[in-house]
Amino acid sequence: MNQDYIKPDGWSIIEEGFDQERVKSSESLFSIGNGAMGQRANFEESYSGETFQGSYIAGIYYPDKTKVGWWKNGYPEYFAKVLNAPNWIGIDFSVNGESFDLAKCTAVADFKRELNMKAGWYRRSFTATLANQSQIAVEVTRFLSLELDEVGVIQYNITALSGALSLKINSYVDAAVHNEDANWEERFWETLSSTKATDAVYVTARTFKTHFEATTFGATNVSNNGTAIAAKEISQESADKLGVVFETTVAQNTTLSITKFGGYTVSMNHENTVAAAQKVVEQARALGYGKLLQMQAEAWSKIWEMSDITIEGDVKAQQGIRFNIFQLNQTYLGKDSRLNIGPKGFTGEKYGGSTYWDTEAYCIPFYMATKDQEVARNLLTYRYNQLDRAIENAGKLGFNNGAALYPMVTMNGEECHNEWEITFEEIHRNGAIAFAIYNYYRYTGDYSYIPEKGLEVLIGIARFWKQRANFSTDKNKYVILGVTGPNEYENNVNNNWYTNYIAKWCMEYAAEQTERVAKEYPADYSRIVAKVKLGSQEISEWREVGTNMYFPYSETYGVYLQQDGFLDKELVKVDKLDRSQRPINQKWSWDRILRSPYIKQADVLQGFYFFEDHFTTEELEKHFDFYEPFTVHESSLSPCVHSIQAAVLGKMEMAYTFYLRTSRLDLDDYNKEVEEGCHITSMAGTWMSIVEGFGGMRVKDNQLHFTPRIPKEWEGYSFKINFRHQILKVTVKHGETQFMVDGDKPLHVIVNGKAVEVIPNSLIAV
Amino acid sequence: MNQDYIKPDGWSIIEEGFDQERVKSSESLFSIGNGAMGQRANFEESYSGETFQGSYIAGIYYPDKTKVGWWKNGYPEYFAKVLNAPNWIGIDFSVNGESFDLAKCTAVADFKRELNMKAGWYRRSFTATLANQSQIAVEVTRFLSLELDEVGVIQYNITALSGALSLKINSYVDAAVHNEDANWEERFWETLSSTKATDAVYVTARTFKTHFEATTFGATNVSNNGTAIAAKEISQESADKLGVVFETTVAQNTTLSITKFGGYTVSMNHENTVAAAQKVVEQARALGYGKLLQMQAEAWSKIWEMSDITIEGDVKAQQGIRFNIFQLNQTYLGKDSRLNIGPKGFTGEKYGGSTYWDTEAYCIPFYMATKDQEVARNLLTYRYNQLDRAIENAGKLGFNNGAALYPMVTMNGEECHNEWEITFEEIHRNGAIAFAIYNYYRYTGDYSYIPEKGLEVLIGIARFWKQRANFSTDKNKYVILGVTGPNEYENNVNNNWYTNYIAKWCMEYAAEQTERVAKEYPADYSRIVAKVKLGSQEISEWREVGTNMYFPYSETYGVYLQQDGFLDKELVKVDKLDRSQRPINQKWSWDRILRSPYIKQADVLQGFYFFEDHFTTEELEKHFDFYEPFTVHESSLSPCVHSIQAAVLGKMEMAYTFYLRTSRLDLDDYNKEVEEGCHITSMAGTWMSIVEGFGGMRVKDNQLHFTPRIPKEWEGYSFKINFRHQILKVTVKHGETQFMVDGDKPLHVIVNGKAVEVIPNSLIAV
Repeated sequence: MNQDYIKPDGWSIIEEGFDQERVKSSESLFSIGNGAMGQRANFEESYSGETFQGSYIAGIYYPDKTKVGWWKNGYPEYFAKVLNAPNWIGIDFSVNGESFDLAKCTAVADFKRELNMKAGWYRRSFTATLANQSQIAVEVTRFLSLELDEVGVIQYNITALSGALSLKINSYVDAAVHNEDANWEERFWETLSSTKATDAVYVTARTFKTHFEATTFGATNVSNNGTAIAAKEISQESADKLGVVFETTVAQNTTLSITKFGGYTVSMNHENTVAAAQKVVEQARALGYGKLLQMQAEAWSKIWEMSDITIEGDVKAQQGIRFNIFQLNQTYLGKDSRLNIGPKGFTGEKYGGSTYWDTEAYCIPFYMATKDQEVARNLLTYRYNQLDRAIENAGKLGFNNGAALYPMVTMNGEECHNEWEITFEEIHRNGAIAFAIYNYYRYTGDYSYIPEKGLEVLIGIARFWKQRANFSTDKNKYVILGVTGPNEYENNVNNNWYTNYIAKWCMEYAAEQTERVAKEYPADYSRIVAKVKLGSQEISEWREVGTNMYFPYSETYGVYLQQDGFLDKELVKVDKLDRSQRPINQKWSWDRILRSPYIKQADVLQGFYFFEDHFTTEELEKHFDFYEPFTVHESSLSPCVHSIQAAVLGKMEMAYTFYLRTSRLDLDDYNKEVEEGCHITSMAGTWMSIVEGFGGMRVKDNQLHFTPRIPKEWEGYSFKINFRHQILKVTVKHGETQFMVDGDKPLHVIVNGKAVEVIPNSLIAV
Repeated sequence: MNQDYIKPDGWSIIEEGFDQERVKSSESLFSIGNGAMGQRANFEESYSGETFQGSYIAGIYYPDKTKVGWWKNGYPEYFAKVLNAPNWIGIDFSVNGESFDLAKCTAVADFKRELNMKAGWYRRSFTATLANQSQIAVEVTRFLSLELDEVGVIQYNITALSGALSLKINSYVDAAVHNEDANWEERFWETLSSTKATDAVYVTARTFKTHFEATTFGATNVSNNGTAIAAKEISQESADKLGVVFETTVAQNTTLSITKFGGYTVSMNHENTVAAAQKVVEQARALGYGKLLQMQAEAWSKIWEMSDITIEGDVKAQQGIRFNIFQLNQTYLGKDSRLNIGPKGFTGEKYGGSTYWDTEAYCIPFYMATKDQEVARNLLTYRYNQLDRAIENAGKLGFNNGAALYPMVTMNGEECHNEWEITFEEIHRNGAIAFAIYNYYRYTGDYSYIPEKGLEVLIGIARFWKQRANFSTDKNKYVILGVTGPNEYENNVNNNWYTNYIAKWCMEYAAEQTERVAKEYPADYSRIVAKVKLGSQEISEWREVGTNMYFPYSETYGVYLQQDGFLDKELVKVDKLDRSQRPINQKWSWDRILRSPYIKQADVLQGFYFFEDHFTTEELEKHFDFYEPFTVHESSLSPCVHSIQAAVLGKMEMAYTFYLRTSRLDLDDYNKEVEEGCHITSMAGTWMSIVEGFGGMRVKDNQLHFTPRIPKEWEGYSFKINFRHQILKVTVKHGETQFMVDGDKPLHVIVNGKAVEVIPNSLIAV
């Protein structure tokens, strides 16, 4: 943990001082993205210190050959990786003949980074003394345009401090990149061609195997103390690396300003990526740095207008939630149903693929409430489009008849994970995909998705569960053997309550929806039945298995058991565990973790979160009080669910503590791993812990409900909700909650159980 | 399976015909070894077809860096590998200028391999036509001397068939070898120096990391039609590869005979490995090929004298058992307590380390009965010498206070395996190590091992079990959670009956032995208590945990359950499984295997095998009838135990089928994998299935018991037992069993429950 490193600020992430040890962590925290591409906050100029270079293009991946110690049948042969893309940010320069490298300077002062979340740019500034005594001041501003989402812009200003300085600049692009997490040290890109203009370079490269083509471009303008200078030449160090070279002398206390327009045009979007790149360069240059920066601020302003959450009286909490909302929007904007929300977004490579159950369980509620419903629909459609692959995945494990098992991790629908206890057994993920369909309809009221697409997914999932469960003559119930629940600190257990519960729910929900579609959308129904060959017995089989599902339960404790045999463990609570033993995933051997009662993240409680209205508050409290004390929260997805439930149960101290943990997980580097990238998907959980936790927002019977609560540390907080095309702003203060609705229609909401009519454009206080 | 490929023969393994597809399989089957070294039956001359080159030196290994997809805490960083040793067999030659290569000949006729098990040599012969039309006949005989166990001998005879032929020969040694199973394609040996003599070459190389030094030597004599010819020169292609070169013309229908003495001298045994090599070359040359071959036959004759099993009327069964006994003796002769019995012996590299629980569970009974008891004692001592490492291994998993966990796989005592469900959880292996101590004493009556060494091992193991079990308040019993039993088709289960049973037994046996040593060997006891810091409460704690151990049991079936929850499975018996689904480990995904009721190898029944006298025959039958129908026998260790138990239960058809499967597993290539090497350790199980299964041999109360049975397919069979320095020969025929004892003392045995006095040197028929 690293509590006081990032300066508290409501709108910016700020680092002060140059610490080589922190470069990799800051590269993660100051990452920028625009949904279509993103990059770590690597230095533009060469840097010989420790760094983790990363630039990524949404949707572009490489199937790396799987690496395991011992092969198990069913493992995927390839493992799709988020792919490190060619570098377009490179700006090398020398000062009086010495190559500039922050790691080699004799002095670096006033080093500062700022990620301005309000306006969507990242800036780095410092003064430095080179070994040859030259002194310069540098200020670099960089952003990835939201409007022109193939373009990134850099303004790199160098001021000569120690007299007139001779500068040589090489503003390059380089396709010779590699992945930190490559299994076999293979190269993922092959360069096809390059194109040179007077002051711009283009390198076209293609990924091996997947054959994505990308033209990486870099167009550079330089002005010396306000006067534009011409490029000297185009350098070409290799087929992969081309640069525009400038040479000039900068007078003392004047500034050389390099403006670079770079980025990618890709074959997912263009026939001719070179022509497209040339066109976009022209467009960007015509707009220029200033205009593009202004457009960026405006675009972010629109995003914030809808998605901002304000917190009064707690700047760290404020900074935390904005960082979370900012990163989510940097990662995914919902325009393209081919894309999804990678667990590290564009901030790192860890975990391989881009899509986890995190999307359905955590991210969809955020996007549903802060964007148009089309965004959530796109995320559902992504899974619909991958249904055939999910059926293939299930087939590899021995299931048939259209049973679908969505992958644990994926880029293109194929499974990309290879730990048997996860890949083959953490099958509850399938439930989250069905739940998201239900949740989308519950929130938006848009039923059309189900007959159009969702029902096929629900049928595939129900078929999987029906086959995956088996009848135990011993228990006279259906059981689900050999699973890993959300708590990954248990593997290959029998009858994980959460898995059994969501399986039962999926089968029953699929049965209901099939019947509803049959009745209300007969044409869709006929099309689907023919397509998926739905047998006449299937629905009643799903109901039979669902109705007779077994759930482990303890009479002694009056709680459902996480899995069979949970009570055989030595039930020592986390607070009795020596601090030196934490986090157990770093301190303990794997078998010791498995035998322990410790829970990585909400498991039974995840079920109580999804299906809250199936249980009484007393039941929730009983289960929360039983399981939370065994929970070590060593997953980024854990604190948010617990924060919400603690708030529901009026345990506000706990709710607040969990909130801070989820919202500042990366900023304060709780898990000492932020250098690998940020935890993007759990950031949606942070949003939920305010809106659903403190705000108590729920949707029931087509109405918004609120049970507002406020941590004593805060003076007030506010958030906005897009509910069925009406924008509601909720402001919670101690003793009062205010509602405002845009537009011209009133909105009927339920606050603390009472109906409230929110009249347009007036502040309703409750 | 490959039932009719190897020609049936009582004493030899014979292949006829040259099939490039079978080269790798035959390289395994025709492997030779002498306990100190061994090698696959690779061709001496270069061969461009598919081949798996392997030559191994006992005790020499390399710690390869562990390769996993996902690291788990507790994994060993290195994985000790049986190391492919420098090649000394190389004899390249050209005929009229064309390099000889069987894969490139225009015709190969009369190709034959013979492994003569009686005399201990391997021979290959053929005639071949080269592309240049030259025709030759070749006969190569090779053996690894049992007497001079650093020496191997080759006689390579080439007869000119198509007129006078000009031959150029390069008889080389080459240290540039690599392992088929290397994780990172690293080189394991570095060459230090080479030494040349007129007609001998020596290359000294050292293993990286482990720094074993070996001088590989090759001394060559050539005679042309009986007349010795001088070497032309020493060739040196690289620092690693040196050869003795001969050039001559061989007249039609005369023979050129190359005799090569090669092998290794290693730093485990010699200060100066070069000098030692020169000395051994001198010795070998002085003896010469003929004398060494004769000594070899005599040495094997001695081995067979004691360990042969004859079977009348079933040549395939005869060939099978002899192949098993031969391979065991090729692999391990018991002279050196630094060595152990690798699962592939010297026939391949698979599975890494050299020592598994197979040694204790399967091999020790064979060596105890067919060698002097010192051999079994050496095998026990091997584990005693590695006790500190076993304590370290347990420490890595979080155990303390001298708890010892012996590794799943090892070369030097360190764990060399990295599947968490095996490495961390297949802990029953610890029980087999204790059981072997008990078994050794039971068989030999030599108690001295326990106070001298064994007790420390028993204490370390008991401490492990005590810590590994935990008290379940729910069950009011001690439980053992998260284990993999002998049936590796179940992972991370709770309360595997076999594991719980052997754990209980270990703790109680350690308690008894501690008390006995305290009483009978007070000096040893004081020494041990001081050394291991045995606490005064420990023994009663072991008893407490042992006495209150939980065992899953089904009232419905009247059987102990393999583990908690076994009855929740879909209990479809193996004979209901479509043949196309077998073997399930090739046809099914891992999760499907785990969920199935199918058992890879004896699990509950392994416990009934070890602790037969704890249960009635009725109980055995009940458990056999319950579990065998779910057993797929996809481990080489499975059929032997089932053969023994089927015999005990009078199910002779089954016993015979299992016997064939265990004894001809490799010869008939049941599992289609013999090209990777032979299943050496399970070969001891074949021996057990005759002696303990059909012969019904047991040791109870210091007496040999027999319950002889004979498969109807056989006319008779015989075996010998060294029981406490008396050699007993048992011959079983239909209706009669004959006993003969050597020496001058009678031996009292129990046959079918009745006492029989076997008078020396007379045949006693019962």
